[in-house]
Amino acid sequence: MRAPRTDRNGLEVLSRAACLELLGSRSLGRISVSNRGLPSILPVNYVLDGDDVVFRTGAGMKLYAAARRALVAFEVDEFDAQARSGWSVVVTGVAQEVTDVEERDRLASLPLDPWVPRIDSTHVIRLANGRVSGRRLARMSSHKP
Amino acid sequence: MRAPRTDRNGLEVLSRAACLELLGSRSLGRISVSNRGLPSILPVNYVLDGDDVVFRTGAGMKLYAAARRALVAFEVDEFDAQARSGWSVVVTGVAQEVTDVEERDRLASLPLDPWVPRIDSTHVIRLANGRVSGRRLARMSSHKP
Repeated sequence: MRAPRTDRNGLEVLSRAACLELLGSRSLGRISVSNRGLPSILPVNYVLDGDDVVFRTGAGMKLYAAARRALVAFEVDEFDAQARSGWSVVVTGVAQEVTDVEERDRLASLPLDPWVPRIDSTHVIRLANGRVSGRRLARMSSHKP
Repeated sequence: MRAPRTDRNGLEVLSRAACLELLGSRSLGRISVSNRGLPSILPVNYVLDGDDVVFRTGAGMKLYAAARRALVAFEVDEFDAQARSGWSVVVTGVAQEVTDVEERDRLASLPLDPWVPRIDSTHVIRLANGRVSGRRLARMSSHKP
């Protein structure tokens, strides 16, 4: 068995396939947006459609990012504070609103149900052709208690 | 008792005091960084020092952000997928490396112990004068199963 590839910090570098599997196993991520030059990070419910992250949104920063086809980062992670272990996957891609009627109909069948019961989550956004990367921090046998 | 303030999506708007209390209750957040124009989101261990988010880092994107005193977003959240409830707090501030020897000595006494056992986490970064905002999504009594 080959030893996993690690980065300069000793973190395991996850393969694209492993990243996509982890992305597909979750439904809540975080997206980087910018509002009048102020960066922010917003939680968002999503589904993985093929290799693309897809989510719904209403009017706001996430839709604004899509309207100007901004390059955004989307992150999903899971950490265990006790074990000091976990993983993080980041997708960097161009936010695009899905406007094609047939594609919207198809996406409507996906489990893409925002937690926030807002009435205006009518826009579907896709992060297309995203660059995917991920890291895993394995449980350490020795760390300060 | 006054009803909590809500935003246009029906999310409870958290006070600065509530945000700082939540920030102080956690030790892992996520920071927005940019590498050659590519936005990313990286997990980071932190402590709250007064009202400031403080973390250690080695050479890399987080240090680079501090070196050019970049405006960055830092986020902490907790969500319950089953209950579809949770909260998110964002700090937007200027990343600055702490270089003052006395201040570094004082910060060394804080529980600022990175999970990643890298040997070069010698730089201490502070998000100074951060703009703090937070939202809470209360458990909904009615949502699709």
